[in-house]
Amino acid sequence: MLDILHRVGIKASSDEVYKALATRDGLAAWWTTNTQGDSKLGGVIKFRFSVDGREIGGFDTKVLELRPAERVLWQVIEGPPEWIGTKVSFDLKQEGEFSIVLFKHAGWKEPVEFMHHCSTKWATFLLSLKQLVETGKGAPSPGDLQISNWH
Amino acid sequence: MLDILHRVGIKASSDEVYKALATRDGLAAWWTTNTQGDSKLGGVIKFRFSVDGREIGGFDTKVLELRPAERVLWQVIEGPPEWIGTKVSFDLKQEGEFSIVLFKHAGWKEPVEFMHHCSTKWATFLLSLKQLVETGKGAPSPGDLQISNWH
Repeated sequence: MLDILHRVGIKASSDEVYKALATRDGLAAWWTTNTQGDSKLGGVIKFRFSVDGREIGGFDTKVLELRPAERVLWQVIEGPPEWIGTKVSFDLKQEGEFSIVLFKHAGWKEPVEFMHHCSTKWATFLLSLKQLVETGKGAPSPGDLQISNWH
Repeated sequence: MLDILHRVGIKASSDEVYKALATRDGLAAWWTTNTQGDSKLGGVIKFRFSVDGREIGGFDTKVLELRPAERVLWQVIEGPPEWIGTKVSFDLKQEGEFSIVLFKHAGWKEPVEFMHHCSTKWATFLLSLKQLVETGKGAPSPGDLQISNWH
């Protein structure tokens, strides 16, 4: 199994970062504005993405762990075949003025081109999370950074 | 062995992207301004990084493959212990108006925190490469985007 890994440091408390990871409003402000469903433990969150006003798909994730200021873990239950069954985690720790986010999207079966794409997109969305928590304004889809012909 | 993967699409020809990957001047304009050495086949390129005017280290890479408009492959021969022996490759292909870069930093032994950091930094440097080729101006170190307390 293959994993996508990232690390960002956010000038904020881990409590503030956790809020952006564990609530629907938080997630909608850095990943995709079209975030629906239930972000509580055991709930299913529905993330949908649009390009030029047209919905192009998304992911449903089940919330497996919620540890305030420490950890959020989801499992993907609907979405592109490569994503189904994979797990997405955010581990938080404080280092001085920075809240460190260790990100993992675990359980990819093959290093397909789509995995390369998702790795780069995750980096840009984690920088959107950083921007949201530090400045109050992230860059969620559909206003996210275009990195290629796959958007 | 573990790999860092990324994919970006650059509105340019693969010839132009290749120039930014296969020449010292190109590399200095998106990765680090302090790029020395020999970028020809079999040569060793020396990349050095500074923070606040102080050199903090870098990498020496041996050029193992150079296929114009298609592929660049390096092996890291000096640098942080986790990097030594790893291979960095850039595979290029044209898709319509985009030159697609498939990036791989292969051969990490453990998923250490530094690997998480380097994965995110590579994403930002590949976006600097994209910006350089599309606009003529990248964001190489020391003017690179700060993503955390590790810079």
